[in-house]
Amino acid sequence: MNAIYRKGDVMLKEILDKVKSEGSLIHCITNYVTANDCANILLACGGSPIMADDIGEVEEITALCQGLTINIGTLNQNSIKSMILAGKRANMIGIPVILDPVGAGASALRTQSAYALMEEIHFSVLRGNISELKTLYYGCGITKGVDVNQIDKITEDNLNEVVEFAKKTSEKLGTIVVITGPMDIVTDGKKVYVIRNGHPIMGKITGSGCMLSALVALFAAAHKDNILLATVAAVITMGLCGEKAYEKVLQMGAGSASFRNYLIDAVFLLTGEELNGGANYEIR
Amino acid sequence: MNAIYRKGDVMLKEILDKVKSEGSLIHCITNYVTANDCANILLACGGSPIMADDIGEVEEITALCQGLTINIGTLNQNSIKSMILAGKRANMIGIPVILDPVGAGASALRTQSAYALMEEIHFSVLRGNISELKTLYYGCGITKGVDVNQIDKITEDNLNEVVEFAKKTSEKLGTIVVITGPMDIVTDGKKVYVIRNGHPIMGKITGSGCMLSALVALFAAAHKDNILLATVAAVITMGLCGEKAYEKVLQMGAGSASFRNYLIDAVFLLTGEELNGGANYEIR
Amino acid sequence: MNAIYRKGDVMLKEILDKVKSEGSLIHCITNYVTANDCANILLACGGSPIMADDIGEVEEITALCQGLTINIGTLNQNSIKSMILAGKRANMIGIPVILDPVGAGASALRTQSAYALMEEIHFSVLRGNISELKTLYYGCGITKGVDVNQIDKITEDNLNEVVEFAKKTSEKLGTIVVITGPMDIVTDGKKVYVIRNGHPIMGKITGSGCMLSALVALFAAAHKDNILLATVAAVITMGLCGEKAYEKVLQMGAGSASFRNYLIDAVFLLTGEELNGGANYEIR
Repeated sequence: MNAIYRKGDVMLKEILDKVKSEGSLIHCITNYVTANDCANILLACGGSPIMADDIGEVEEITALCQGLTINIGTLNQNSIKSMILAGKRANMIGIPVILDPVGAGASALRTQSAYALMEEIHFSVLRGNISELKTLYYGCGITKGVDVNQIDKITEDNLNEVVEFAKKTSEKLGTIVVITGPMDIVTDGKKVYVIRNGHPIMGKITGSGCMLSALVALFAAAHKDNILLATVAAVITMGLCGEKAYEKVLQMGAGSASFRNYLIDAVFLLTGEELNGGANYEIR
Repeated sequence: MNAIYRKGDVMLKEILDKVKSEGSLIHCITNYVTANDCANILLACGGSPIMADDIGEVEEITALCQGLTINIGTLNQNSIKSMILAGKRANMIGIPVILDPVGAGASALRTQSAYALMEEIHFSVLRGNISELKTLYYGCGITKGVDVNQIDKITEDNLNEVVEFAKKTSEKLGTIVVITGPMDIVTDGKKVYVIRNGHPIMGKITGSGCMLSALVALFAAAHKDNILLATVAAVITMGLCGEKAYEKVLQMGAGSASFRNYLIDAVFLLTGEELNGGANYEIR
Repeated sequence: MNAIYRKGDVMLKEILDKVKSEGSLIHCITNYVTANDCANILLACGGSPIMADDIGEVEEITALCQGLTINIGTLNQNSIKSMILAGKRANMIGIPVILDPVGAGASALRTQSAYALMEEIHFSVLRGNISELKTLYYGCGITKGVDVNQIDKITEDNLNEVVEFAKKTSEKLGTIVVITGPMDIVTDGKKVYVIRNGHPIMGKITGSGCMLSALVALFAAAHKDNILLATVAAVITMGLCGEKAYEKVLQMGAGSASFRNYLIDAVFLLTGEELNGGANYEIR
């Protein structure tokens, strides 16, 4: 394993700056639990969100947008149909589509819907936790609700295995794969980025994953020519902002709800220079 | 143009005080993205929100209330029917009804639903951005998702035109019109208020518009005899609280998510005296 | 009336510690207004939330969980069916189920749905305000939307009556009853706890009740052998955290939106020792 350890990368600043200036419109078909957070983090990063899930309008809405994120967090029979229509339209017009298979493995409906979506739509990026991704790769699995199974947890000890698993998954499913956890892994099946930004408190709020998936769509929309790097930048942005937000939590004697606000604040305030300086990742 | 420039108006204090003491119950048929924010801003201003959208109960819920706000932000086939039933009931019992045509122009479903609603229901107030309102006036138009089209943006240069447009729209649609943007315009087709409170950061959170529409319903509910002035007071309240919240953002080194909280905090804390002192508008 | 007045109880620390360490998974079939708050307060208290309401998956999701909370805040024809299926499954596998009859009395749909739920499902705990509970006991009633009727308000003067009413209701409906208000009452029909923690500002945000119902499910899930005490501990936790959050509001010159965040923060930060020290209740 020839890992190149880096701290900071000049490209990140340019990627973020373009995202913030471009102001892409992102169609989110997402859950009602974190829709507000997703909208706010997109706005905080210069984007413009539109949430729309009725079958009568999703194709038209997607056609207006520069990116689409599909999140099955509170899916239902109607929204699944809308997701498929929107995703196909996105493929047709060539804008990036992100899948967040929330809770795949927790019910047959979620697992099968994720499969159906992947069969009908080409996803640019698939982002989930390790339990969700294992479910999608192996065709079965048990997730602990929407959180990761304890036995699946990514550690330094199993990191190499998880990296290999991520590469296999990317190849099999034909999409960039993001596995988030204590370390985040981003791969297109060949190149692998292991990202060590972030803080455990991110697991103590709802929506960390959903917000990241929305950000990935925003970054990819502004960088259609290099979605892998755009995805890496989005993941680092989220992690670094998590660190900054946690610093503020400590400083303020605050808790998890304030953390959520500080996290979105941090995205709003983040400069390209800070992103370069704070990035902590290796390329394998 | 005989503009009367004013800063502060004794009436505003009385309007706000009555809103806060009345504690009106407001039925919100609204989107799932900002429903929480709308409920919280109503509570912050002394009101009491109830969100209900099932066709089996909307008429009864409306009948309990003193105001109704209809927001098509995440409309669906079912909720459109509920909106029409609730709106008709509100007309029957004589309580104010507000329409927020979120994203009219972004899809045929939204545009047509807004028309259907306006055909079936008499709205006391129609509040939207300039792109949404142009769509409704001209019968077509393209909005950038739920945000304003760059070419439509209200500036000092086109302000007179926008004022004329607002008056025409009010006359044609038979309702008080509120166009929000860098300047806010409120008109009943004859009298026009141009309001210069607010801050650009309000566009960096989701729900600024939705929350204002909810507040307009609350103010109108407490002032059924003068909905025009009530609406003006609601718009000034929102704008002034935006200014106050932005000051706190600067003071705290915060960002957009904290701004959202400070905005609702500011409504909670706002006194009639502060409203009088901070109001910045002209009557044309 | 032989009231035993206590301030603090050694048991509370143990109850909270177990809740925080257990990390129970709670299925929430709840409204879209406060779903985010419910998820975040569960996470803040060591739990793990999953929101799922499609009829095609609710039974499976419930089967994964250690507790279920059913909240009719924005019920619809589909979600009612899902609630019944999920509740039955919860009964079958023996996990606690909590009912939050939001707005029972405000519409026939809500009242009848609450009855249908209570007929089909055995609820461990029923939590509502006094107006909702009166509706369910007497079979009719008028609630002011989702808030309490002024004439129903709990005061020191009518406290004894309300306590008797709570006991009767618990006996009639065969469930632990929690009536929240200026004072909170928890009873299994025999033993009664009157809790004097909390602060009136809790009524100035949406979701205080919904969040408490979610917490009750979390506490009950970790203490299936003593759901009465678990419920009492959850109610005290919420009230005490409301007091702590209000102190922070005063200290920061903040308002109701910040209060919401500080409330969840307080749950996140609360220690068993603080809970013991701050509890303020009597046993009757």
